[in-house]
Amino acid sequence: MSTTSHNSNNKGAVKLSYSLIVKGTGFTSYNREKVAILEEALFFIDDRGVIAEVIESSDSSYQDMLAKYEQSENYQALSETEYLLPGMVDLHIHAPQWAQSGTALDIPLADWLNTYTFPLEAKYSDLEYANRVYSDLVSQLLSVGTTTALYFATVHQEASYRLAEICATKGQRGLVGKVVMDDPQQNPEYYRDASTAAALAETETFIQRVQDLHKRTRQGVYPVVTPRFIPSCTDDALAGLGELAAKYDVHIQSHCSESDWEHGYVKERFGKNDAFALDDFGLLADKAVMAHCNHLTKEDAQLFADTGTAIAHCPISNAYFANGVIPLQEYATDYQVEIGLGTDISGGFSKSIFDNIKQAVISSRILEDGVDTRLASHERGVPKSRITLNEAFYHATAGGGQALSLPIGKLVKGYAWDALVLKTDVPEARLPIFDQKEELTDIFQKLIYMSQGANIRKVWVQGQLVHTKGETNGNHN
Amino acid sequence: MSTTSHNSNNKGAVKLSYSLIVKGTGFTSYNREKVAILEEALFFIDDRGVIAEVIESSDSSYQDMLAKYEQSENYQALSETEYLLPGMVDLHIHAPQWAQSGTALDIPLADWLNTYTFPLEAKYSDLEYANRVYSDLVSQLLSVGTTTALYFATVHQEASYRLAEICATKGQRGLVGKVVMDDPQQNPEYYRDASTAAALAETETFIQRVQDLHKRTRQGVYPVVTPRFIPSCTDDALAGLGELAAKYDVHIQSHCSESDWEHGYVKERFGKNDAFALDDFGLLADKAVMAHCNHLTKEDAQLFADTGTAIAHCPISNAYFANGVIPLQEYATDYQVEIGLGTDISGGFSKSIFDNIKQAVISSRILEDGVDTRLASHERGVPKSRITLNEAFYHATAGGGQALSLPIGKLVKGYAWDALVLKTDVPEARLPIFDQKEELTDIFQKLIYMSQGANIRKVWVQGQLVHTKGETNGNHN
Ligand SMILES: [Zn+2]
Ligand SMILES: [Zn+2]
Repeated sequence: MSTTSHNSNNKGAVKLSYSLIVKGTGFTSYNREKVAILEEALFFIDDRGVIAEVIESSDSSYQDMLAKYEQSENYQALSETEYLLPGMVDLHIHAPQWAQSGTALDIPLADWLNTYTFPLEAKYSDLEYANRVYSDLVSQLLSVGTTTALYFATVHQEASYRLAEICATKGQRGLVGKVVMDDPQQNPEYYRDASTAAALAETETFIQRVQDLHKRTRQGVYPVVTPRFIPSCTDDALAGLGELAAKYDVHIQSHCSESDWEHGYVKERFGKNDAFALDDFGLLADKAVMAHCNHLTKEDAQLFADTGTAIAHCPISNAYFANGVIPLQEYATDYQVEIGLGTDISGGFSKSIFDNIKQAVISSRILEDGVDTRLASHERGVPKSRITLNEAFYHATAGGGQALSLPIGKLVKGYAWDALVLKTDVPEARLPIFDQKEELTDIFQKLIYMSQGANIRKVWVQGQLVHTKGETNGNHN
Repeated sequence: MSTTSHNSNNKGAVKLSYSLIVKGTGFTSYNREKVAILEEALFFIDDRGVIAEVIESSDSSYQDMLAKYEQSENYQALSETEYLLPGMVDLHIHAPQWAQSGTALDIPLADWLNTYTFPLEAKYSDLEYANRVYSDLVSQLLSVGTTTALYFATVHQEASYRLAEICATKGQRGLVGKVVMDDPQQNPEYYRDASTAAALAETETFIQRVQDLHKRTRQGVYPVVTPRFIPSCTDDALAGLGELAAKYDVHIQSHCSESDWEHGYVKERFGKNDAFALDDFGLLADKAVMAHCNHLTKEDAQLFADTGTAIAHCPISNAYFANGVIPLQEYATDYQVEIGLGTDISGGFSKSIFDNIKQAVISSRILEDGVDTRLASHERGVPKSRITLNEAFYHATAGGGQALSLPIGKLVKGYAWDALVLKTDVPEARLPIFDQKEELTDIFQKLIYMSQGANIRKVWVQGQLVHTKGETNGNHN
């Protein structure tokens, strides 16, 4: 606004072609502590969907660049009540369990698995059923701002591949695992791999097919080596999966030290903790993500840090199945373990990473304060356990990207343009902003704590618009 | 569907006139354990907005009554994907704090009060500001299904009365308290009652004005005696407020034993617990509702039961300010204390009682399992503390009604028709229902755990439609 800008191609800068230029106020983590506020910044997206440049309004080139591009076809300016966030990363979600989300959380785990979960997952031998549920799930995740998801599918190769195809088509960055659960002693006859050899052969074919699909997919889809958890798998399967992961350099996911029961089972079978057992099979690595990890010891946490293995923290699910709250702050600060958030559908009832951000903060505060009010306050909790909203937001975005070793989760040069537009004054979901000069830090907190699906107006993945709501009438569902 | 029905006025039944007849599947608590499923039932609402009759499809009179009324003007049948719930009761909400919801939850309580909350509440001396915020809040609460709310307003009589008027106009059953905080030692000069005498006089006038307004309001609006909490008030104010409550037979609300600090402060000042101190001033009674109560002793809980005093449990807020999880199951089953749920805006960030139902379940499970995974499992938590989803739903509806001694919170004869229509297949908020024969118990759980504001299509209070979304184009916001 200061000087009249002129359209000169000054300083002989190389003229780049941008697929998208967005002007708006964005919030992004630079690191775990700091959420940067980019007020009325210019975001330049290249033709691969990568952020080529972020120019803040205080930058000397801002006025020139604005003048140069604001008439271009690819230029979009957010309205006064719209804000940018990086896309959310869901590090742990069981896609087939979408059909039972929100149910059966009051029953014991064994019933939950045998009466609900395994019979449901077995139904995905039916590709038509898989198609219906997976299509709906991917659309719904995009609509709540989940731009990247790391999925457990089922044992079925075809249905698992179908999930990868749906992600490819709908534009979500999907990382998909065909689940391995081959131990006849531990899994029901109607739902398990036919044999250890079959489990490994199917996994290898699945990897090859998805890697081929990946080449044809703008935002990328990725195969993931996926032993359900140690108790479901034979030693041979675990060893074979570790080898496949190394051979194809792919992501790995499983569950680790989720509950007292699991922790105890692995200790009994291998004489060591889950983390060390997984490591013996080559299943801890930079591209490995382990769900839950509430019961890691200090040595386990150090092993995670040393191997670059990440934790998928699923705070809603943990309240039902994990028997304790993860000491997240300790893992993050004392051991520098990589940590992202997961919904764990359907151990968790919510598809939204926003909901899991809130619960991550809440659970960490309950861990710090403790629960039993009949104890003296100093005997109740674990001091210094709380995480801030900024930290939880980091884990949901940048932390998830770091966990997956992908350049996602930040509105920063070199990162993929995975971004959300949230609007504060949507009639059916107005945020309570009554002051025209409301501080941007307060608006950020209201956006994270209070927005609903209805507030999310646009979702891009890798520079591509994959979901819109409101003014535009696109139907990408 | 079985036999041809005929329109006979059989058995010489008295012909009643109904203002509304609704056919649909509803879920309602009969008691704390049992959620009844009323499949395709007929609900007959009289002209005072009270449920005159509920006829289940198994009743012998069902076909005749359906035939007799289904052509009537006042008859409405829910669609196959719509379900009825009783309206939600919010037992604790600070209306002025709506403007700061979702912010400042990472800072210490003293800063939260002095930097954010008190300066904000002081702004309600401005009636225009009060009008803007309160109008928005009441509309938004109705849109998420809160048909009754027990409000803390501010110290200002006029703005508090304005809130009661807004509830009256918009059709919400509002119970409103002008806050008393008269102690010059404990409250900032810019925000407190002018004197003890003024606090009591203003309260009395406020009671009289709202009782007068009540007479002109279909669903009722109620004045509430509201000492902020013991630390804010002088002994004389507390005693005077107890007398006013008795004189006018009105509701009472305050905070009780919320945090370690509050618990300790009252013990220091009176040499007894918060509950007994409140009782000495005549502030525990059948129509009294105390927020939080996380630190009640067994004797305190018994006193609550003996006096009929209810607890407003605010699980989201508690994670930030209460230093421990309330032993809800124990209070409810061992002592039979009346318990409802509250949002505690803005100690809690969510306006939705649905969100607080979920957090009540989650927090109770964390209490049962404990938090510190470095302890042995039997040392970690408090056994038998979990509550089920059904129990949390009870507290949110019927329990709230019982706490207020009002006939609300159940879809049962003699209760007010405060009811919600939730739709499962709203395009922007579809619930994951893929099986045409999905069990109704599972649908109930999905409705409670997964529905958003967008799923709530109609809201009635006292038989009057106060909010609609979707097909109808009413704008009651
Ligand atoms: Zn899982
Ligand atoms: Zn309060």
